[in-house]
Amino acid sequence: MSKQAQPHTETNANTGFAPGWYIVAASKDVGMNPKPSLLNGLPIVTFRDSSGQSVALLDRCAHRNAPLSAGRVIGGNIQCHYHGWEFDRAGACKAVPGLCGEPDHPARRVPSFACRDSQGWVWVYSEANVDPDSAPYEIPCADQAQYLTIRERLEMPGPLDAVAENALDVPHTAFVHAGLFRKNSDRQEIEVVIRTLAGGVEAQFIGEQRPEGLAGRILAPHGGEVLHWDRFILPCIAQVEYRLSDRSHIIATTALTPRTPTVTDMFATVVVKAPIPNVFLRTVVKPVAMRILRQDMEILRRQTEQVARFGAEEFASTEIDVLGLRIKKLLREASSGKASPPQEERRIKMLV
Amino acid sequence: MSKQAQPHTETNANTGFAPGWYIVAASKDVGMNPKPSLLNGLPIVTFRDSSGQSVALLDRCAHRNAPLSAGRVIGGNIQCHYHGWEFDRAGACKAVPGLCGEPDHPARRVPSFACRDSQGWVWVYSEANVDPDSAPYEIPCADQAQYLTIRERLEMPGPLDAVAENALDVPHTAFVHAGLFRKNSDRQEIEVVIRTLAGGVEAQFIGEQRPEGLAGRILAPHGGEVLHWDRFILPCIAQVEYRLSDRSHIIATTALTPRTPTVTDMFATVVVKAPIPNVFLRTVVKPVAMRILRQDMEILRRQTEQVARFGAEEFASTEIDVLGLRIKKLLREASSGKASPPQEERRIKMLV
Amino acid sequence: MSKQAQPHTETNANTGFAPGWYIVAASKDVGMNPKPSLLNGLPIVTFRDSSGQSVALLDRCAHRNAPLSAGRVIGGNIQCHYHGWEFDRAGACKAVPGLCGEPDHPARRVPSFACRDSQGWVWVYSEANVDPDSAPYEIPCADQAQYLTIRERLEMPGPLDAVAENALDVPHTAFVHAGLFRKNSDRQEIEVVIRTLAGGVEAQFIGEQRPEGLAGRILAPHGGEVLHWDRFILPCIAQVEYRLSDRSHIIATTALTPRTPTVTDMFATVVVKAPIPNVFLRTVVKPVAMRILRQDMEILRRQTEQVARFGAEEFASTEIDVLGLRIKKLLREASSGKASPPQEERRIKMLV
Repeated sequence: MSKQAQPHTETNANTGFAPGWYIVAASKDVGMNPKPSLLNGLPIVTFRDSSGQSVALLDRCAHRNAPLSAGRVIGGNIQCHYHGWEFDRAGACKAVPGLCGEPDHPARRVPSFACRDSQGWVWVYSEANVDPDSAPYEIPCADQAQYLTIRERLEMPGPLDAVAENALDVPHTAFVHAGLFRKNSDRQEIEVVIRTLAGGVEAQFIGEQRPEGLAGRILAPHGGEVLHWDRFILPCIAQVEYRLSDRSHIIATTALTPRTPTVTDMFATVVVKAPIPNVFLRTVVKPVAMRILRQDMEILRRQTEQVARFGAEEFASTEIDVLGLRIKKLLREASSGKASPPQEERRIKMLV
Repeated sequence: MSKQAQPHTETNANTGFAPGWYIVAASKDVGMNPKPSLLNGLPIVTFRDSSGQSVALLDRCAHRNAPLSAGRVIGGNIQCHYHGWEFDRAGACKAVPGLCGEPDHPARRVPSFACRDSQGWVWVYSEANVDPDSAPYEIPCADQAQYLTIRERLEMPGPLDAVAENALDVPHTAFVHAGLFRKNSDRQEIEVVIRTLAGGVEAQFIGEQRPEGLAGRILAPHGGEVLHWDRFILPCIAQVEYRLSDRSHIIATTALTPRTPTVTDMFATVVVKAPIPNVFLRTVVKPVAMRILRQDMEILRRQTEQVARFGAEEFASTEIDVLGLRIKKLLREASSGKASPPQEERRIKMLV
Repeated sequence: MSKQAQPHTETNANTGFAPGWYIVAASKDVGMNPKPSLLNGLPIVTFRDSSGQSVALLDRCAHRNAPLSAGRVIGGNIQCHYHGWEFDRAGACKAVPGLCGEPDHPARRVPSFACRDSQGWVWVYSEANVDPDSAPYEIPCADQAQYLTIRERLEMPGPLDAVAENALDVPHTAFVHAGLFRKNSDRQEIEVVIRTLAGGVEAQFIGEQRPEGLAGRILAPHGGEVLHWDRFILPCIAQVEYRLSDRSHIIATTALTPRTPTVTDMFATVVVKAPIPNVFLRTVVKPVAMRILRQDMEILRRQTEQVARFGAEEFASTEIDVLGLRIKKLLREASSGKASPPQEERRIKMLV
């Protein structure tokens, strides 16, 4: 009670933007037709060069600022539709049609971004003209033989931290997803352990029984205790992991890419192992997941609209908001280049 | 002439927002389904508690700022749709599902607004967490036996002061409502007396003949002199009263609630006594009133759009703009907590 | 090469608005119904008075700021729809219905603009209450017997300087209009002479062969050298002139009127003399011109959107951008009342 008796009201702390690797598209959607994206408001064009490697450049011709994504790929370079200037994968200018002389020049370069295909997604490093020493996040179990792997892209209303908190929040499921997992009755007390990860935070839920809703009954028809972790990992990973009996295992990893201050692209990779055939699993998991996500989109849209009407967030938290404030803090620190020392493990009680 | 020869150009004086009682909805429209409104840009949710009393809270959950109006009323409290937090009519937090411990806490309160049903309308006091010592405005003759009472809600383009001036302005009727009341010919000189009321201002028109238009002919088929007053009463009442012979009496009382800086909700209560049966009166008064109001909406929309293009009002007034500048002054003073001493009665001439 | 080796990146220099004569409408479209226009964001109403002369006033009633263009012309004056105030061609107030006394007063005047019909267009001088000592630009060859004259109005996305540069730019034609005039192959070196005009700048192209595209083949079926000039003349004229053999001559004169910071009205007068019958010429010139203009609108829209996303232009130019920077400089100087001395004639090479 002592801690819980001291909740506080947080006024909007702009969480900023954490540098790092973000997904901008599915690998299959990037090809010879230039594809425009927005990464934290910055227009980015992606395409594949002659060797099939994915390329990411600022989507603005150095000449007259037309979007390069309106042009085409020619000889592995991207050609602007306005005056035909061409840029290679490093952003160097390779052609200024009509000009007598060398096209390349420092003032004519387009900023380029490190770009990699990994696990079915095209990842872009958020800082221009940098060769990052880190690699994109590795999604656990993706495309492993025992797992069904489902990929989906959704446009979520809300800033990254609101979408991440929503994805990792337990208490809202009894209301927004009433009937699909938990319900607001017959609650039992469980323990939650909150621990610092490298560049992230994890909540482990101990003593939780299999949720009674539809999703739980499909994955663990015989009930039993559930192992459950929620994780946020900088700059953009929100991950929910469930183990229900030793035969069912599900990890939903979402990579969140801010488009604008109030719209976040969600690139979800869901891996499932369950004691039912994959062909049946696929027909069930995706519709249920989409129903959950549409419900979340609706409440996030309402939350985002209301925050916009007031001009800023004004949140009050309790101890069962186990990850929301930590996510904001991680983002705030990463965006300003600071980092706190790891926090001590913390244990709280929650009714689920 | 001396005064009239000194007109002045007024640049936009933001008239501000006067604290007080405003209508947000018809009583019949507030029930167990939470209803969202905007009061001067502030989202408000209204509903009825278990005793049937109307309740007004800030439409923002203290927790994650979702609109409470997206939730539902349960046991007389309003329950947020996101995490199920519940708030009572005073805004106190009565449930935080999942939390082990007491839900109520100062940081988890939602601001509440004094709220009363009166004369068919739900009135809300504009300042949060205040027990006002005043009562809502009492609409004269509403629901009295000899009077037909008509209620209507309209969304008017324009700020409160522009809508109030339009409602109380005589000269525009010959143009915007040509044919319905006055016309721009055969004008006669009348006298207008302008007096200070408590928290308001009144213009009385002396010597006016029954207008020749359709509205006049219905209410006073035999002509004669008209007694006519236009009134503005803080914070939001614009009222037009006509007596045509001793058998016809009409008072149109509009309560104006600013939604945004350029949209004003108009809650109109029209009471009519006339020497024709109510059943006939109703079939005539409402269509004529609606036609007048639609014409006013159109010119207010054009005025508001043009002021927006220029960024500010730049008005020139003459002495026959009898109430416009006084309304602006009353609102400006009330919004800044000042009050002028009553002004002396003033008499001018006007051609109608 | 020395100059070309020193390109520079220009960040957005707001080019401002040059005072002078602008077209707001075709003469045939201005009559007894008041017509609203926007001149650099300023609402203007045009109409004809009793003598048939065109009149331009600020489109804002001095009284309550309703748009005069919502009113009507009565006795040669414009009457506001709201309260019936009337204004003459000089903007003086001629009627305040209901007022006992003289309507005219300095505070009740509406700003008026010099306004002339010339060559099928209504030209307005951009500064209010000024009797300009200059005349509107005279469009060469318009309505001359040997020429077919075509007039067209289009709304172009983009600020005036971007639309003017686009209209006068050679290198983009091989890409945006691929197939219609030039192509990006078999290029030959030509010389471009850039000279200062009075209040303008001209580029002359020397040694250019007839373009191979459709437009060239219609106008000069037998090929040969082309005489070609591109001109910008303050405040708003972009002009392209071609002579192909001594029998074909085309001048496309566009008068550009900024509506808003990102939308420009283009009033085009195209005069053509060619060795084919006018009836055939008309059926060909207009569709080809419209196809070219639609392609330009599309790339201008994309450029304008992308500049808006970044908040400002960030252009890199080469010496074959022969007029763009000069147009910006002319506009910047004219808007701030400065003027540079004439620049020396400059010659560069270009591949076309």
